[in-house]
Amino acid sequence: MKLKVGIIGGSGYTGIELLRILHQHPRAEVHAITSRALKGKKLYEVFPNMHGMSDLSYLLPDDEKLFECDIVFFATPHGVAMDSAGLFLERNIKVIDLGADFRITDSAIWSEWYNMEHTQESLLNEAVYGQPEIKRSAIKDARLIANPGCYPTAVLLALKPLLENNLIDPSNIIADCKSGASGAGRNANQATLLCEITESFKPYGVSGHRHFPEIKQELESISGGAIGLTFTPHLVPMSRGIEATIYTDLIDSDADILSCYEKAYENEEFVKILPEGVYPETRSVKSSNYCQISIQYVEHSNKLVIMSVIDNLGKGAAGQAIQNMNLMFGLDEKEGLLEIGLLP
Amino acid sequence: MKLKVGIIGGSGYTGIELLRILHQHPRAEVHAITSRALKGKKLYEVFPNMHGMSDLSYLLPDDEKLFECDIVFFATPHGVAMDSAGLFLERNIKVIDLGADFRITDSAIWSEWYNMEHTQESLLNEAVYGQPEIKRSAIKDARLIANPGCYPTAVLLALKPLLENNLIDPSNIIADCKSGASGAGRNANQATLLCEITESFKPYGVSGHRHFPEIKQELESISGGAIGLTFTPHLVPMSRGIEATIYTDLIDSDADILSCYEKAYENEEFVKILPEGVYPETRSVKSSNYCQISIQYVEHSNKLVIMSVIDNLGKGAAGQAIQNMNLMFGLDEKEGLLEIGLLP
Amino acid sequence: MKLKVGIIGGSGYTGIELLRILHQHPRAEVHAITSRALKGKKLYEVFPNMHGMSDLSYLLPDDEKLFECDIVFFATPHGVAMDSAGLFLERNIKVIDLGADFRITDSAIWSEWYNMEHTQESLLNEAVYGQPEIKRSAIKDARLIANPGCYPTAVLLALKPLLENNLIDPSNIIADCKSGASGAGRNANQATLLCEITESFKPYGVSGHRHFPEIKQELESISGGAIGLTFTPHLVPMSRGIEATIYTDLIDSDADILSCYEKAYENEEFVKILPEGVYPETRSVKSSNYCQISIQYVEHSNKLVIMSVIDNLGKGAAGQAIQNMNLMFGLDEKEGLLEIGLLP
Amino acid sequence: MKLKVGIIGGSGYTGIELLRILHQHPRAEVHAITSRALKGKKLYEVFPNMHGMSDLSYLLPDDEKLFECDIVFFATPHGVAMDSAGLFLERNIKVIDLGADFRITDSAIWSEWYNMEHTQESLLNEAVYGQPEIKRSAIKDARLIANPGCYPTAVLLALKPLLENNLIDPSNIIADCKSGASGAGRNANQATLLCEITESFKPYGVSGHRHFPEIKQELESISGGAIGLTFTPHLVPMSRGIEATIYTDLIDSDADILSCYEKAYENEEFVKILPEGVYPETRSVKSSNYCQISIQYVEHSNKLVIMSVIDNLGKGAAGQAIQNMNLMFGLDEKEGLLEIGLLP
Repeated sequence: MKLKVGIIGGSGYTGIELLRILHQHPRAEVHAITSRALKGKKLYEVFPNMHGMSDLSYLLPDDEKLFECDIVFFATPHGVAMDSAGLFLERNIKVIDLGADFRITDSAIWSEWYNMEHTQESLLNEAVYGQPEIKRSAIKDARLIANPGCYPTAVLLALKPLLENNLIDPSNIIADCKSGASGAGRNANQATLLCEITESFKPYGVSGHRHFPEIKQELESISGGAIGLTFTPHLVPMSRGIEATIYTDLIDSDADILSCYEKAYENEEFVKILPEGVYPETRSVKSSNYCQISIQYVEHSNKLVIMSVIDNLGKGAAGQAIQNMNLMFGLDEKEGLLEIGLLP
Repeated sequence: MKLKVGIIGGSGYTGIELLRILHQHPRAEVHAITSRALKGKKLYEVFPNMHGMSDLSYLLPDDEKLFECDIVFFATPHGVAMDSAGLFLERNIKVIDLGADFRITDSAIWSEWYNMEHTQESLLNEAVYGQPEIKRSAIKDARLIANPGCYPTAVLLALKPLLENNLIDPSNIIADCKSGASGAGRNANQATLLCEITESFKPYGVSGHRHFPEIKQELESISGGAIGLTFTPHLVPMSRGIEATIYTDLIDSDADILSCYEKAYENEEFVKILPEGVYPETRSVKSSNYCQISIQYVEHSNKLVIMSVIDNLGKGAAGQAIQNMNLMFGLDEKEGLLEIGLLP
Repeated sequence: MKLKVGIIGGSGYTGIELLRILHQHPRAEVHAITSRALKGKKLYEVFPNMHGMSDLSYLLPDDEKLFECDIVFFATPHGVAMDSAGLFLERNIKVIDLGADFRITDSAIWSEWYNMEHTQESLLNEAVYGQPEIKRSAIKDARLIANPGCYPTAVLLALKPLLENNLIDPSNIIADCKSGASGAGRNANQATLLCEITESFKPYGVSGHRHFPEIKQELESISGGAIGLTFTPHLVPMSRGIEATIYTDLIDSDADILSCYEKAYENEEFVKILPEGVYPETRSVKSSNYCQISIQYVEHSNKLVIMSVIDNLGKGAAGQAIQNMNLMFGLDEKEGLLEIGLLP
Repeated sequence: MKLKVGIIGGSGYTGIELLRILHQHPRAEVHAITSRALKGKKLYEVFPNMHGMSDLSYLLPDDEKLFECDIVFFATPHGVAMDSAGLFLERNIKVIDLGADFRITDSAIWSEWYNMEHTQESLLNEAVYGQPEIKRSAIKDARLIANPGCYPTAVLLALKPLLENNLIDPSNIIADCKSGASGAGRNANQATLLCEITESFKPYGVSGHRHFPEIKQELESISGGAIGLTFTPHLVPMSRGIEATIYTDLIDSDADILSCYEKAYENEEFVKILPEGVYPETRSVKSSNYCQISIQYVEHSNKLVIMSVIDNLGKGAAGQAIQNMNLMFGLDEKEGLLEIGLLP
């Protein structure tokens, strides 16, 4: 029997990526999908790659079919999952929120960055931050998962081995990050028109981006102490992919950093450490759930530069969500996720 | 037991697409891969999406490991498969040539377009043109497959229902075709640098392209008579995808053309006929083995316009080759090929 | 003294291209620019390439400053210029409409394609279709110009020499055209997001596009008889550029077609005929007012294939409008327009 | 009388950009252009945007026509200008080297980074580093200019006001830089094929890039003391543009940094300081000689982030070279360079 999956807010790029991955998942299938705006529309009217693939139509988000599911994914604007997650949990339906409602453990900080009161403190306390390479055992037992943001996923995987082993100065970390345009969503928006983005590159959100408190919180959770972080996102003229170039001050320049990374991830399918002198490219993980990481020590400035790449819709969203689902239901964690990056 | 697959000339985009598809194929695996130029290199040194995915290295094309295979794919320049295919066939190893050596049944025509003598007339006679939707039963029994070209695949699937049912004037068919740059291969080449192609669109090969005789031959094979064809390829600033817009003169303007297409492909998994008024986009089939087709009757000029899209590396090359392999070994034709197009 | 130019509806891509060209025009300058939605905003707040270039702000379209102009350009949705052009003409201010309000001489046909009554029949009768290479002398005397559409410009320049010399069968012309995304404008629109367009190619408007009646009318005006036309537009994943591949049936296969083209355009600065066997690329005319044309005779099907490229925002819109302005005021037609295409 | 300009090594992207700018320069014209590989070819056979624009053909680099010039530009691989510059200087022909031969004042450092002995110490001593905003008066008197590299141009303009005013800690500067692919040149190269670059983003040269010693040298020249610099270049899937995001530690957090920048560049046409909270995009300066700079103070980490954008072929190469030429000949510095960035 396959798991029955519900997708709430399935009209965007995270929605279609969930549909695409689940289409080939041997142990799960989409049972219901909702969108207020698209009610009654067939999937293939919304996503042209779905012609002939499914006969599902969009339901309203209060449709009873959702309660027949084993798990629901929220791919909604912030505030929606916060209000509705409880309805599913009380019916023993597990919940994975791909939005930000349960990512920030301090509700006051959440309110400050998301301009909204947090009304579900107890759920917030219960929610597990769903990065399997960091919190696998808690995820297995969780009912409610806060699926990590895309930038945080790339940065946390890149820094975990260093912070766990106290190899860098935690007070001065710079994360210069770059993302494709799909991170901005599928809504009509002048700023993400092809003509506004193609053949151009730009920083944005330099004075403050919502992923800042999330990255800081999780880095501090790993290190056990305060982190000084500077985070700058940039927009790359492409649809998918995130690259993080991270600058840190090495404490012990004799440490064997590469071995440390290889050891930290030796049992992790989805994190690949690159050989010395090989740097990651976002295309290498496009369409996949993989993360590639490379490190480079710059002797003259004693900087350790860490570079990581993910697909923001894969490991940075839908892929990681499915990985969490697999863990929550005791399935093989890799089920449905072994696709190699599409090249070219 | 999985089929053992050999890939001869696996350094290009067709090679990596074969590797990518076979990585998830439940009944086949790559046993040997060759490249003269890359001898001894690891796959991941050549294709960065392969880090941690495989420990295979490139062999020379005369390596004995190839003879341990059940099937070999040639992804080589023309002339190579012609000379070597026999070595495998005589050892009961099946052969699929993704190049052009066995596509043109008339060796004189082949020589004219490929500037080379054809030295293997008997193999040429034996080879089956590997378009499953047209020659499925012959493919099942074949030892040697001429895998169709990318443009021919898109055009033949688009025209088959019309020619079979004598619905159009065969003397005046215009195929205006567009392709992404991966069709030009992975060799260093000024003409396909990003800076030469991006943000530009152009026709090429207007006075004659090697896919012209191939398309003409196969259209005439379907129709049983002479075909008058004008074929113009164009280069689109993207990596993957082919679109064909085909102009034909309708003989009977009352015929129910849409039903005719739906009937022709009702049992075909990989050909999807779009609803009236919906036109295909190459992105809908990117990374997949699917073809989407749409038709539009233009009353004022009595033209029937047929539009089809494929991924030139998928249904137009590696995907169709795997489909042929599945058929040749009695596997489920769809095995390993059900991936939905990657969007975005 | 420089001409004072007004731009009505200057918030889109045609608006910024007019601003960009006029910035270096030695004989004209922008005196007023309007946009209801952007009232009070500085130019550089809307177009980031304008930082430090101009201190102009957007006015409302009824601002008196417009009446101080020598000429106004309408870069507005259809219906706006129709209603307002008279206000300027009666004040002896010349008008160039970059929209479609005065392009179709038969108001009934216009109404059918634009879903709106045409309320200004007398202005419609007065307006001159502003393609300088075809109607130069009428343009010089005009008060009101209907600036041609982008597709029509590319197709008309490509076919003029053939029709004037009765070299092709006028009953069977196929124009397979391709455009970059800037033709769809700068408004927020899901369909033109980068993630919807990049790495994809598609036909659209196959059942009927508003440029069809315009092209047909002008072709018939050149030929003096009925034209049978099939026109299919496609969207290319790039921002600027139009390519037209046109299929015609040659009447006299011995005619020296290349000489005919060279002769037709020998005195035209902005139309370049390419040598035999060289095909045009849209990048060659990007950012410029030039059109490049190539012809290829396909003997086996007796088709003459004509290919032309323009920049849809240059010769296809703002560039041609400035060319018309130069003519209307007795300036050197080439003033401000000699920029070479930007490569790469 | 126009200046006669020679271009040595005019087959690449810098060459065509020089041609394009000079085509509209009122006081200079291209008199001779050379390329060993393209000898005898017309310009338009090499650059398709040049059809009908010029009748020039490529000469060999020892053609006498070069000695008729007033100035020659070297757009050649390193080592070429070093050997040949003297031949022109002794004939009173000024020289601008767009390559790296005269950029590094310490010949030992140059040799280390460029793997070649420097044979022209006296010319090296004479050469002026051609960044007009920093060394204008020396440029006016120079016979030999070392035109700055693209990354250095973006970084130096961004940091000059801070270093001159001792506002940052000079020991810890991080320059995270991004470039379009045209920086890698026009030679056939697998690594810069469209299919290798499009829809991907990557760091490169992290362990050491030739622009590192150049940036360091010039920063130290400005500051008068040692600079600690970490420099990481990245490749963006686009053809033109460079963005630098630079992280510095502010010494006095009360300083009015924005005013300092505005003051530093108030008389500079080609450097635009953006308003607070507005960040630069590479498209804003595409095809132009402009640089846009923005600053952002990040209070929680006391970092001052400076962002600058240029067109690597414009202000980063050919544009700046023409600006230097204008200065060397006493022309208006802005002549031929006032084009606004092409948008979209």
